[in-house]
Amino acid sequence: MSYDECYIRSVIRAVPDWPEPGVMFRDIAPLFQDPKALHCVIDAFSQRYIDADISHIAALDARGFLLGSILSYKLNLPLILIRKKGKLPGDTLTEEYQLEYGSACVEVHTDACKEGDKVLLIDDLIATGGSLLAASTLLRKLGAEITEAAAIIDLPFLHGSSKIQEAGIPVHTLIAY
Amino acid sequence: MSYDECYIRSVIRAVPDWPEPGVMFRDIAPLFQDPKALHCVIDAFSQRYIDADISHIAALDARGFLLGSILSYKLNLPLILIRKKGKLPGDTLTEEYQLEYGSACVEVHTDACKEGDKVLLIDDLIATGGSLLAASTLLRKLGAEITEAAAIIDLPFLHGSSKIQEAGIPVHTLIAY
Repeated sequence: MSYDECYIRSVIRAVPDWPEPGVMFRDIAPLFQDPKALHCVIDAFSQRYIDADISHIAALDARGFLLGSILSYKLNLPLILIRKKGKLPGDTLTEEYQLEYGSACVEVHTDACKEGDKVLLIDDLIATGGSLLAASTLLRKLGAEITEAAAIIDLPFLHGSSKIQEAGIPVHTLIAY
Repeated sequence: MSYDECYIRSVIRAVPDWPEPGVMFRDIAPLFQDPKALHCVIDAFSQRYIDADISHIAALDARGFLLGSILSYKLNLPLILIRKKGKLPGDTLTEEYQLEYGSACVEVHTDACKEGDKVLLIDDLIATGGSLLAASTLLRKLGAEITEAAAIIDLPFLHGSSKIQEAGIPVHTLIAY
């Protein structure tokens, strides 16, 4: 993985002062513009999970969809959509989480998973971990076990990955800043 | 394709009166919960585009991401992210389009494509065609040619696919309601 990691790192774009002054945003859009980089990322995840005891993949709206859908297709596993509030029709469960200012909600279909399912949770980046923890709460309320939370990028100084691990969920990321 | 079409159609869920009374919403979430259905969809698109003269795939936030990312990975083509306003860092172009009440915006990175690129535009569903037409305008402003607009579902009674064709863009969908 060391070569892949260097290559992936070289493709991610650092955007200073976005979305607000003082923040260094890590933009994964260039990974998707570069088929070699995307294959490095997907290969890394699929090698890890191809023989893992996982029944479902759950992806977070919207950048998590970009990774979760490819892994779901490649590993032949059902994909659970974790969406922002008001985007899913039919019966849903909602979970609120705190942002720096205010709060946000994630939702899931109540028939997305059930007792005994083993879910890999995926997003592009772990910052404060709020949305991934809210997604875990939703899936646990439906009876599922969260086997791991995975992302391309970890920002350990924001302590999201520690909080997720404290909630009993292993974390796997490819790169940390 | 006829067997696949029947199977895909059987998996899509009709949700009456959502997001408002009188609307029959076609929910593609169950397609992603069913690996066989997802393979039917992706096979249909990849067979069509595997030897087509296309240099890029552009996908619309957020359900279009689910399809565009898999196709981009499978066909080894760069993926352009067309996002809702305020989601892309760095230099972007913005295009407004009309909704039933009010308006919305889509954005693209200015370095996402250039003169001479041939882009396949993908989303889950074509309703009024507003977001796909706005995305086409953005990509054409960057110099790209739109080779086709593709979606799983067409709702011809909303005339979106006709409007897209009138703008000089061929349309390909798997199912119509």
